[in-house]
Formats: sequence, C-alpha cells, structure tokens
Amino acid sequence: MRIEKEKMINGEMYDASDFELSKARNQAQKGLTNFHQTQELNKKKAILKKLFGTTGQNFHVNPGLIVDYGFNIHIGEKFYANFNCTLLDICPITIGKNCMLAPNVQLYTATHPLDPIERNTSIEYGKPITFGDNVWVGGGAIIIPGVTLGNNVVVGAGAVVTKSFPDNVVLGGNPAKIIKTLDSK
Amino acid sequence: MRIEKEKMINGEMYDASDFELSKARNQAQKGLTNFHQTQELNKKKAILKKLFGTTGQNFHVNPGLIVDYGFNIHIGEKFYANFNCTLLDICPITIGKNCMLAPNVQLYTATHPLDPIERNTSIEYGKPITFGDNVWVGGGAIIIPGVTLGNNVVVGAGAVVTKSFPDNVVLGGNPAKIIKTLDSK
Amino acid sequence: MRIEKEKMINGEMYDASDFELSKARNQAQKGLTNFHQTQELNKKKAILKKLFGTTGQNFHVNPGLIVDYGFNIHIGEKFYANFNCTLLDICPITIGKNCMLAPNVQLYTATHPLDPIERNTSIEYGKPITFGDNVWVGGGAIIIPGVTLGNNVVVGAGAVVTKSFPDNVVLGGNPAKIIKTLDSK
Repeated sequence: MRIEKEKMINGEMYDASDFELSKARNQAQKGLTNFHQTQELNKKKAILKKLFGTTGQNFHVNPGLIVDYGFNIHIGEKFYANFNCTLLDICPITIGKNCMLAPNVQLYTATHPLDPIERNTSIEYGKPITFGDNVWVGGGAIIIPGVTLGNNVVVGAGAVVTKSFPDNVVLGGNPAKIIKTLDSK
Repeated sequence: MRIEKEKMINGEMYDASDFELSKARNQAQKGLTNFHQTQELNKKKAILKKLFGTTGQNFHVNPGLIVDYGFNIHIGEKFYANFNCTLLDICPITIGKNCMLAPNVQLYTATHPLDPIERNTSIEYGKPITFGDNVWVGGGAIIIPGVTLGNNVVVGAGAVVTKSFPDNVVLGGNPAKIIKTLDSK
Repeated sequence: MRIEKEKMINGEMYDASDFELSKARNQAQKGLTNFHQTQELNKKKAILKKLFGTTGQNFHVNPGLIVDYGFNIHIGEKFYANFNCTLLDICPITIGKNCMLAPNVQLYTATHPLDPIERNTSIEYGKPITFGDNVWVGGGAIIIPGVTLGNNVVVGAGAVVTKSFPDNVVLGGNPAKIIKTLDSK
C-alpha cells in the first residue's frame, strides 16, 4: 500500500490528516522558527539547505517565509526571495537559475475538490509549480497550482497567474495575461 | 446615550479613538501575542475560544492571524484558517460550518467615508461579512465590507470580492465574477 | 565618483550589493526588530522617527511593517499604517497629510531590468512613489514604482495601481481604473 506522502507528491488525492504528514509539517514549522530566530546569515542558509529539497550554493531568503513541508522546494542557483513569501509545497515547486521572488509572493501547489461533500472529507490534492531560468515574480503576485512558467518570464506586481506561459513574456492582471513579449535574442 | 462599541457593531458611524474600544483592541493584540507564543495546540485553541465571539468544538488557525477585536468573529464547526489571515472585525464576521481560508486571506469589515473631510475626523463605520456553510476562500483573496457568500462558494486565489454571491458558485478575478456554477445536488 | 546610495535614490542604475547599502539595510532591519519588540507606544514612535526620513508629530504604524531602508520614507501629519504594510523604499516614498494605509498594503519603489542578462548582474533601479493629502489605500492594495496619486484619492481593497492618477478619484481593479469621481468642492 502506498503511503500518503507519496500520493501527495504525485498529485493524487491524499489524506492531509495523515500522522506522518502532520509530523513533517510540524518539523518544517520548527525549521522556519529556527530560520527566523537565527541572525547569522550562514547559519540561516544552512537551515534552509536542510529544510528545502534542493538548493544551489548561492541563494538568499528574507524573513517571513512560509512553507508547508520544505522538502518539495527545489531552487536553482542564485535564488532570491524577498520578505513574507508563501510557498505551499504539497507538490514540487521547481525553480530554475537566477529566479527572484519579490515580497509577499505566493506560490500555491495545494488545492481542494470543488464539490463541498468531497472537500469536507479532508481528502485533498496538489499540482506542481515549475519555473524556468531567470523568472522574476513581482510583489504580491500569486501563482496557482499546476502553473509552469518558461525562461525569462516576468510576472507583474499583484498578477494572479492561473495558467502556464512560455518563455520571454511579461504578465500582468487578474487573471494574468501577456502584456509584453521580450526579444528572445 | 449609546456607547461607541454598540454603534460600531451596528454598522453606524462611531469614533474609533473611543477609550473603551482602544482598550479592547489592545486586549485583542495581547491575546494574539499569547496565541503566537504558545506552542501547545490545545492551549492555542483555548486562547482563540476566549478571543473569538463564537467557535465550534473543532477548528484550527495557523500562525500569522490578525484581528481587530476578536469578539465579532463567529466561526462554525470545522473552521480552518491557514497562515497570515487578516480578519478586521469592526462588524460581525459570521462564518458557517466547514469553511476554509487559505493563507493570506483578508476579510475586511472596516471602512471609512469617501469624503476626505469626513474621513479625517476619525469617525468611521463597518459592514458585516457573512459566509454560509462549506465556503472555501483561496490564497490571498480579499472580501470587502458588506459581502455575503452563500453555501459552497469557492473564491479563487487572489480574487477581490466586492459584492454578495448566492450558493454554489466559483468566483475569480478583480472584481470577482462567477467563473463556474456548481451542481446544487 | 558618485556613491551607489546617491544613484539609487536618484532612480539611476545602481549596485544593490554595495557594502554601504547592505549595511544600511541591516541597520533598518535592526530598527524594525526593535520597533516590533517594543511595547510602549511613545518608544515605538521614537524608533520610527529615527528610522524614517521625515515624519509628522502624529502618526501610528501597526505591527508587521517592512521597509528596505526607512530613510527614503517621508510621511506627513496624521499618517496611519495598519498591520503588515510593506514599503520598499529604494527611492523616495513621499506621503502627504492625513493618509491611511489599510492592512497588507504594498508600496514598491524597487524594480529590475526586464532583460534577463541585465537583471542577473544585480544592477537594479527604482522610481519614487508620491501621494498627495488625504489618500486612503484599501487592504492588500499594491502601488508600483513611479506612481503619483493626487489629493483625496481612494484606492479600493486589492487594487493594483500601475500608473498615476489625479485628485479626487476612487480606484479599483487590476490594473486599477477610476471607478468613481469625487466632488472636488
């Protein structure tokens, strides 16, 4: 029989009240508390290296970070997340090289059934979020479950990205649309 | 003569600088600090039971909660609020059974006069927010003063809900519109 | 040779990894920590008077404030900022008299080049944000770099303001548009 964690990461319906998952969430929260109470930059980085699934050598995360588990977060080299970013990592959040999140950016891989009877069972599921290289997400922008963004994508401040977009576009609005195309050089 | 608290809850113009209201806000902030410093889940719940106007037996609130007073918050059974929710409860926030707030959800009952001269007097007012059962509000969504949502309503991530909606609809956008209707079964 | 701080405030390309600027950001974060750990209102105000570039005699800021430097924030008399406001002050944020920010309001003066190769150099720039008197910004609203708002402007909750607007208008939506004009009396 497959364990709930495996189903969760795989995007299948799983039981969020599972004991092992609750334990993992509590452990992640302890890691975040530790991250926020530690002042020394190298120690802070070491805590995130342990908390996240994958990191590069160079990255920086400002205070106010929220994650569900941490182990589903995979960041490439030179990742930067500014204040108060929320990364709900039920499913993998995979981020390429040189990506930047402005303050208050929200990446949500977690969702629930639309049917209220199903939803009330505490059975839920997620979809992964994937960024290419050089993605820059503006302040307060929201990315919903299942979104893939190509290389060099810029998400405008406050945009709500509800579907995937290819390389070299600038997005804005709610729902987000292409407001500019970049030279692909 | 009626006291300011009574006018405030009733949706009439009131003076927010009133001494009793300032005291009540300070007390609520102490309750929130206590909630955030306490680790044990049952103690955290007991603090919220005292802080909120009404709760069920089963509910869970993740850290980062903001309220103005607490006493105007009335939640039904199996309420769930994820990280960093903001509930400004100048007027009643009444939430049915099985409702879920994703991270960074904002419920605002507080407003101010549009006329700048009136606004600068510190006289202000509010309008209640009311949810039916099985309402699910997505990450970063905002509900403005006076909104009523029916049963089973789903508010998409980042939606800004500026008017009331009936049962069995999925909302999205800014301002939020119906993007899907659910079978009412 | 001009120093990076001068270029930054002036809206020119500057190097954010500059040692003096890093030091100034660290110092601002210490000021914010001090602000959040202090309970006594007069001491909290004294900390912000030191942190901000300019203040009036009367102002109030609720907890959760984020700034980059502080020295580029210039607020007029009777400024009020509610919980969890984010003010990234790479460039001047100049706010008139009697202005109010609701919870989770975000004022961003910081931006980056759209070209990914330029962006990855850590060379960046900003544009100032300027408010007239009696401006009221609703909950969760976002103001992007370069925006000027006239007197008496009301920004609706969740609006994303991407360009400048004159006196006496009410804004809403993403991107924000004029939804009402006020009597200029």
